[in-house]
Amino acid sequence: MHRVVAPAGVLPQAALRLDPSPAIRPDEVRVAVQRLNLDAASYRQLAEEHGGDGERIRAAVLEIVRSRGKMHNPVTGSGGMLIGTVEEAGPASPLGLRAGDRVATLVSLTLTPLHISDGLQDWDGRSEQVPCAGHAILFARSVAAVLPADLDPQLALAVLDVCGAPALVARCLRQRPAGRVVVLGAAGKSGSLALAAARGTTRVGVVRDDAERARLEGTGLAEHVVVADARDAVGLAAALDAAGGPGDLTVVCVDVPGCEHAAILATAAGGTVVFFSMATSFPAAALGAEGLAADVTMLIGNGYVPGHADYALSLLRSDTALRDLFTARLGHRLADWAP
Amino acid sequence: MHRVVAPAGVLPQAALRLDPSPAIRPDEVRVAVQRLNLDAASYRQLAEEHGGDGERIRAAVLEIVRSRGKMHNPVTGSGGMLIGTVEEAGPASPLGLRAGDRVATLVSLTLTPLHISDGLQDWDGRSEQVPCAGHAILFARSVAAVLPADLDPQLALAVLDVCGAPALVARCLRQRPAGRVVVLGAAGKSGSLALAAARGTTRVGVVRDDAERARLEGTGLAEHVVVADARDAVGLAAALDAAGGPGDLTVVCVDVPGCEHAAILATAAGGTVVFFSMATSFPAAALGAEGLAADVTMLIGNGYVPGHADYALSLLRSDTALRDLFTARLGHRLADWAP
Repeated sequence: MHRVVAPAGVLPQAALRLDPSPAIRPDEVRVAVQRLNLDAASYRQLAEEHGGDGERIRAAVLEIVRSRGKMHNPVTGSGGMLIGTVEEAGPASPLGLRAGDRVATLVSLTLTPLHISDGLQDWDGRSEQVPCAGHAILFARSVAAVLPADLDPQLALAVLDVCGAPALVARCLRQRPAGRVVVLGAAGKSGSLALAAARGTTRVGVVRDDAERARLEGTGLAEHVVVADARDAVGLAAALDAAGGPGDLTVVCVDVPGCEHAAILATAAGGTVVFFSMATSFPAAALGAEGLAADVTMLIGNGYVPGHADYALSLLRSDTALRDLFTARLGHRLADWAP
Repeated sequence: MHRVVAPAGVLPQAALRLDPSPAIRPDEVRVAVQRLNLDAASYRQLAEEHGGDGERIRAAVLEIVRSRGKMHNPVTGSGGMLIGTVEEAGPASPLGLRAGDRVATLVSLTLTPLHISDGLQDWDGRSEQVPCAGHAILFARSVAAVLPADLDPQLALAVLDVCGAPALVARCLRQRPAGRVVVLGAAGKSGSLALAAARGTTRVGVVRDDAERARLEGTGLAEHVVVADARDAVGLAAALDAAGGPGDLTVVCVDVPGCEHAAILATAAGGTVVFFSMATSFPAAALGAEGLAADVTMLIGNGYVPGHADYALSLLRSDTALRDLFTARLGHRLADWAP
């Protein structure tokens, strides 16, 4: 809380402005930043606001970080994560990091003090992966993972960014076994990891178009692949009926607004919906379920579950199809890495 | 969906505009409206926007209903409920209502077609209870309760408005027993019902000032009453430590924004937070828990749980202190009713 500049008394995530100065306290860690990974909802909003113009998107990110001391999109309220190398670890830091460790932060950029020193000159503004020089500060209660030696850092980062999703799906299935799991946005990062975590159930992957269907079919990650608009409640329900019915557990991994009602209608009475998208509207979900008289348990996707990073990486290591999906998604950016 | 004017293809709650024309379809019910009960967050927003000026608040409500065909506050996204008398029930309506039944709607006003015919002339704009003439339409999938004969209609309405809260608390406690339950906003309607539903646990009621403390103490609804600002995460955690520690189940019934982090910090590792406030921010909750590395399950308070109306009314009937709290809250408005 000592790094909160304004308003006084709030926690760093709620702050309008943080102090990113480089001198650390005994329980802090300073990281030399190499790359930011913007939250998908945040990048999409910036791209739409600026008409896809890379120069203007870059200027917008620089201005947010300059004025707020953190990459906290004021419209979406979301951030992202980063990778870098530990420069200095305070003697009282409980994170177990040492200078030289290559790390990924697993807490949101919305609460991570950040200073950018290179004007993002190596970023064209056209992707959520942002090459970046500068430094960031980790607190005692932050969560950071040392990047594994056997995986490309970009690949590990892409997995760690959404590692809460498979862990929470696995926990839900332990607490309340489900026969059928429906994943909206199933070809994406969190969606495909959620499918992998639901192995053993009948899995229905909902994707938005035939290109995504082609990517997901044949991977073995889903027993059914359905093309539907996740914002179209009635259309999705009909498509699911044709694929065997609603889910006992529905997982929302679509990063566009307006999927709440469709997710509720996609879920059987007594079932559970987990919302992972930062574009989720709390009132739309709460009032939607009430308005539909839908007896569903609705969870806010908490990005932190103990052991989430190791679990997600283990899914990637053990599932070739999942790994191929991620690798194809990252494409050429993996070309220059060798284990 | 046939009453959705714009945009096409969405469900009524997501619609910008509904058609409230009085002719009903075979599966619809038309209700002559007597009173609206605005959602607390919605009324608070309107009152703040218009500086507490009753005339302007009334004009704002009239304009919302005129332009949208429903009482759906565009800022808060929330609505409220209504009471009235069934005028006509279509032969195919599954709601079991007959002409002349006195009913309360248990689905939100945000999806209920509504026409106001009296200009709200009997409302001074200074309370969320709105005397009103006009008509509303119930759909096949709506939920409405016939008002019980043994309770003042105002009292029943106040209970039914928040009857999802105690039912969901009771369900959470059945699924995962808790030793300690913390309720934020414990002197309010949903808060006091949540406390009543948590009987058998150690209950901590958090209230905002000494006036509320005085109302709650001595009722037997809570073993501890704590005065704290539910937006002050650090202050609340300290106050709870002094009262025995965090909750295994924390219930958020405070209708102001910014309580997400405090609720998360008020909850023990492995515990559950249920958010009932429509002022809850989805990203603030999701990123707050992740940023605090808080292993908590977070539920979106679904206002619909099967049997919720009967359960809430049974709590009121069996708990004199709870009933006294509600009666005192409604005050003089109950004076003209006798069973």
